[in-house]
Amino acid sequence: MADSAVTTRTGRTPAHPILEQDATSEWLGIEVVHTAPGEATIAMELRPEMLNGFGIAHGGMVFAFADTAFALACNPHDGPAMAEAPTVTVASGADINFLASAKAGDRLTAVARHRASAGRSGVYDIEITAGSGDGSGTVIAEVRGRSRTIPNPRLRR
Amino acid sequence: MADSAVTTRTGRTPAHPILEQDATSEWLGIEVVHTAPGEATIAMELRPEMLNGFGIAHGGMVFAFADTAFALACNPHDGPAMAEAPTVTVASGADINFLASAKAGDRLTAVARHRASAGRSGVYDIEITAGSGDGSGTVIAEVRGRSRTIPNPRLRR
Amino acid sequence: MADSAVTTRTGRTPAHPILEQDATSEWLGIEVVHTAPGEATIAMELRPEMLNGFGIAHGGMVFAFADTAFALACNPHDGPAMAEAPTVTVASGADINFLASAKAGDRLTAVARHRASAGRSGVYDIEITAGSGDGSGTVIAEVRGRSRTIPNPRLRR
Amino acid sequence: MADSAVTTRTGRTPAHPILEQDATSEWLGIEVVHTAPGEATIAMELRPEMLNGFGIAHGGMVFAFADTAFALACNPHDGPAMAEAPTVTVASGADINFLASAKAGDRLTAVARHRASAGRSGVYDIEITAGSGDGSGTVIAEVRGRSRTIPNPRLRR
Repeated sequence: MADSAVTTRTGRTPAHPILEQDATSEWLGIEVVHTAPGEATIAMELRPEMLNGFGIAHGGMVFAFADTAFALACNPHDGPAMAEAPTVTVASGADINFLASAKAGDRLTAVARHRASAGRSGVYDIEITAGSGDGSGTVIAEVRGRSRTIPNPRLRR
Repeated sequence: MADSAVTTRTGRTPAHPILEQDATSEWLGIEVVHTAPGEATIAMELRPEMLNGFGIAHGGMVFAFADTAFALACNPHDGPAMAEAPTVTVASGADINFLASAKAGDRLTAVARHRASAGRSGVYDIEITAGSGDGSGTVIAEVRGRSRTIPNPRLRR
Repeated sequence: MADSAVTTRTGRTPAHPILEQDATSEWLGIEVVHTAPGEATIAMELRPEMLNGFGIAHGGMVFAFADTAFALACNPHDGPAMAEAPTVTVASGADINFLASAKAGDRLTAVARHRASAGRSGVYDIEITAGSGDGSGTVIAEVRGRSRTIPNPRLRR
Repeated sequence: MADSAVTTRTGRTPAHPILEQDATSEWLGIEVVHTAPGEATIAMELRPEMLNGFGIAHGGMVFAFADTAFALACNPHDGPAMAEAPTVTVASGADINFLASAKAGDRLTAVARHRASAGRSGVYDIEITAGSGDGSGTVIAEVRGRSRTIPNPRLRR
């Protein structure tokens, strides 16, 4: 698959159509590291407001991060603006296994990849690692995502 | 099961030991509506910063909300402070089905209930509804949570 | 919900339209204990050929048993013969947690219940217990089933 | 990873320790195509008694087939006989997505691969394809398996 140009959140245009006006991804501080058809790699820093009472990453924040990578991999990175896309692909469900913890300041990376499809349904793998950002890392969660391609809800209005 | 006193986030003491110093639940604006052994009901208002690019609840925020209800149901609401509990119960994994969308201003409610256990493993159901807060509501997601009881990581230090 | 008449596999007519010509359910020795809209209870005896190398129930046999209960709960027990039904509801996926083991001679019971729906998608719970058949039992597995209602594939021909 | 010798069920010794006295795998007609540390490929022919009332593969049979591949990948193919192994790795749960159907006479192949581990817990992917046996095939199901390594239950006696 051809590699797209590396784009980060700091640019003026969103790095991927799915991130247009995505307030949650903005709050999380998502950086797009790489996108290609059926693939996406994103990164973010785990901030103190993303921790639970044990002082480690809240499972919900890890899932939200993975869910964003999933959405990027499901939809074309070089497609039309979301307002004009005839169809969009959304998560119909997902299963997450928590394998290790992460702490404030860790750089999280999520790699999402298409695995299989049938009709309008798809299956994706999303792996989340935590590290200090130098390339090494520990797998902290594995997500199996289920997608469904539907008519663009924005065009229903 | 005996009902606990209804407690909200606005009180000085946390409504449940699991919420002590839980920065994510604080950011989400979780209110504890009801707790009992193996059960928890929580609520929150869906704010604009919890939406995705389609203008509806980000799946990660719905999951994070459910995950908090799950944590409350897994751990005793009248137990010792988290710093003193010999064991804690954490999520080892979860499966979520997204059934409907929610919009800014919706009041979300999550009801978590223990279903079955074997040794240190447990299975919980968490149902999330969205409504205007008057009691009616639409089920927007169903979560099946997997728990594991482990030695308190705070006591390892 | 109104209770249907209790029917067993020993009768001449299948206890449920979904069991017509279902070779696997016949091989398993499924008995239909109870059906009602969105519900089904079935039973079977665990035979030696359903064990794995540890001498306990093969996880695949436990799943197959649960999957049959799921199919019965998804489709009307008093509906038309399968050859004539305009739509059928099938499993699009399922998640199983194995909680305890079962041994040859155990009577297994599966109780499937509808939990929630959205459009053509549904969510079901299936609980499997093992016992000596006197009513008591141990939960050996919990299944969360995902259903999809589709045009009857038999009518496509 | 070093490749093991290709072994089939027709040999006198089981192709993998996990298949010793495994009555279900014997009934299914499992052939071991390939094993290596953390990997297993198996095949079987879909027989008429493995079909449901729609005349296609019963979901439970597809799962049972995948579950066997999962067990082979979880346990060493060149380890001690099961009666002597100090620990064994078992399925604590699994999630399956059904993507396409299979018909009698199809040759099914399951490829199981280790994905990640943490302590005694592991995550595996199992992909099931159906074809005429000439190498091509359609993905009919994707399974995400959860494993747990436990003391050998046979040694408890």
